[in-house]
Amino acid sequence: MNILKNDLLLRTLRGETTERTPVWMMRQAGRYLPDYMKLKEKYSFFERCQNPELATAITIQPVEQVGVDAAIIFSDILVVPQAMGMEVQMVEGKGPFLPDPVRRIEDLDKLHLPDVEEKLGYVFDALRLTKKTLDGRVPLIGFAGSPWTLLCYMVQGKGSKTFDEAKAFCYTQPETAHRLLQMITDTTIAYLKGQAKAGADVVQIFDSWGGLLGPEDFETISLRYIRQIVAALKEEVLTIVFAKGAWSSLEGMAATGAHGLGIDWCIRPQMARQLAGPKVALQGNFDPAKLLSPIPVIRKEVTAMLDAFQGHPHIANLGHGILPDVPVDHARAFVDTVKNYRP
Amino acid sequence: MNILKNDLLLRTLRGETTERTPVWMMRQAGRYLPDYMKLKEKYSFFERCQNPELATAITIQPVEQVGVDAAIIFSDILVVPQAMGMEVQMVEGKGPFLPDPVRRIEDLDKLHLPDVEEKLGYVFDALRLTKKTLDGRVPLIGFAGSPWTLLCYMVQGKGSKTFDEAKAFCYTQPETAHRLLQMITDTTIAYLKGQAKAGADVVQIFDSWGGLLGPEDFETISLRYIRQIVAALKEEVLTIVFAKGAWSSLEGMAATGAHGLGIDWCIRPQMARQLAGPKVALQGNFDPAKLLSPIPVIRKEVTAMLDAFQGHPHIANLGHGILPDVPVDHARAFVDTVKNYRP
Repeated sequence: MNILKNDLLLRTLRGETTERTPVWMMRQAGRYLPDYMKLKEKYSFFERCQNPELATAITIQPVEQVGVDAAIIFSDILVVPQAMGMEVQMVEGKGPFLPDPVRRIEDLDKLHLPDVEEKLGYVFDALRLTKKTLDGRVPLIGFAGSPWTLLCYMVQGKGSKTFDEAKAFCYTQPETAHRLLQMITDTTIAYLKGQAKAGADVVQIFDSWGGLLGPEDFETISLRYIRQIVAALKEEVLTIVFAKGAWSSLEGMAATGAHGLGIDWCIRPQMARQLAGPKVALQGNFDPAKLLSPIPVIRKEVTAMLDAFQGHPHIANLGHGILPDVPVDHARAFVDTVKNYRP
Repeated sequence: MNILKNDLLLRTLRGETTERTPVWMMRQAGRYLPDYMKLKEKYSFFERCQNPELATAITIQPVEQVGVDAAIIFSDILVVPQAMGMEVQMVEGKGPFLPDPVRRIEDLDKLHLPDVEEKLGYVFDALRLTKKTLDGRVPLIGFAGSPWTLLCYMVQGKGSKTFDEAKAFCYTQPETAHRLLQMITDTTIAYLKGQAKAGADVVQIFDSWGGLLGPEDFETISLRYIRQIVAALKEEVLTIVFAKGAWSSLEGMAATGAHGLGIDWCIRPQMARQLAGPKVALQGNFDPAKLLSPIPVIRKEVTAMLDAFQGHPHIANLGHGILPDVPVDHARAFVDTVKNYRP
């Protein structure tokens, strides 16, 4: 096992006081980086995910080019539905398309609990190769989608602003929905355990569509399953839960025992801390669109964000993925401002 | 002037105790109604808006067919940019398209502060005809988009999940952005005053994209202008502000002096009341996707919502517009449950 030269992220997640705030950015290995775009032109999305050399190269780009304090493995949350037997297409400029969505109980028969080593071994290979290539420079983050967020795509069949077909599925066929959510949960637990075994120091659960659910539905449809995942993982690996927009359930998310909670820019840090309690690390919450501002504005606003999070464990990040049209030096200004900050 | 037979909405907005909670639904005059779809097949979007007979017929449909306690004039928030000199197209199945968006300061020269009687007189005509046709059955609501929400479309040129071009415009060209916001504000004040004069008993300001802004930006870019509008209007007409997702600024919105504040389903009623204070009427907050549930579930959940709002002025509504695929009897179940509720 490598000794980490920079373990700021891990110590922050364990609640330790650190010499400075760690920083990384969601989607940091992505379209704003010219070197990523070169690989994107040559290889399809699933080639980039499934080839460990490509995935490793992409994962490491922001560590070397932007100076983040953690790498996050290049992959996609939809590899899980794919491993469960669903066809997933990535349509350029349009997003994911699942031509044969789940609509009724019979559709569950087409799905299975996969052997994750067999179906998702390529992710583990990529993690192992990345870990080796990083050589202890920074920690490595693995991830998965939350069961509710994966259900959204598996039922709706494509992206949506409201995912009302997915919601209607849960409201009109609750038994089928809960069977599906449990299947995804079981697969995800095995998958994230495999990621930890392959070298992930931290795993993040992305509940990208948690904020579409009211507080009671979030508990019943989403948090209940996230809780199972965190409980199954938390002795083996550090966990971060990011349910975008689900601020009103921060208290419940903190109670899962996750080491970190992601928050978006629409909640004030003080309010998030009040809801989440004093212990859990909060991760966020810079408005990704603000990286399109002039660099002096970025510096000023990042400093204000860091001020607002003082006094409790904080991981500097965006409140959502970095936008494709952000100039690389703006991303660097974000990271450097965090690194140079002294309270 | 007609005497209103049902003035529940108005009394609730004035903070009076009423015999029961008033109910209406955002987008209640819309695609879930078969009679609306018939008119939609025959007439283009702007024909439906601009012809007072058509707009009146559409406005009254949900009063007669679903039994709501208020009519809201059939129109669109984008009539204001159109009146200011921008081309606005409604592309079937795709939403609005503004082929010549605002991108730099020179683009403001193409816009003007319109004479609202001349450019938007057709809305006033529709209000007058609707008022007459309603004959005092229920109050009539007028509306406009918030300056920030209109800027979103005027800059981005079309719908978006994140409106990052609009945000980047505000962050990189703040002076131009504020000039544009002020132009929209001045137009909107004249427009809503005209609506009140033409018979609107209440006006609602829709800040559909307020929730994309962090709390500080919401204050600077959106609320500052909404405040001007409410201040200019509130002695003439009852006002409701609905900034979807901008829950963290409820306190500031209440301080505008608006009579009502809309909230979405992602905030618990108790929390919204705590943030907004005891006086202002809260409007909402049923999850629109929940109207796709079986009717007994709708009844149960609407009752739970009404319970949660007890003790302070409340207008029952959805937390966002009604979805096109909601069966009419489900919409009726929503309305009837409110009407039959006794705490």
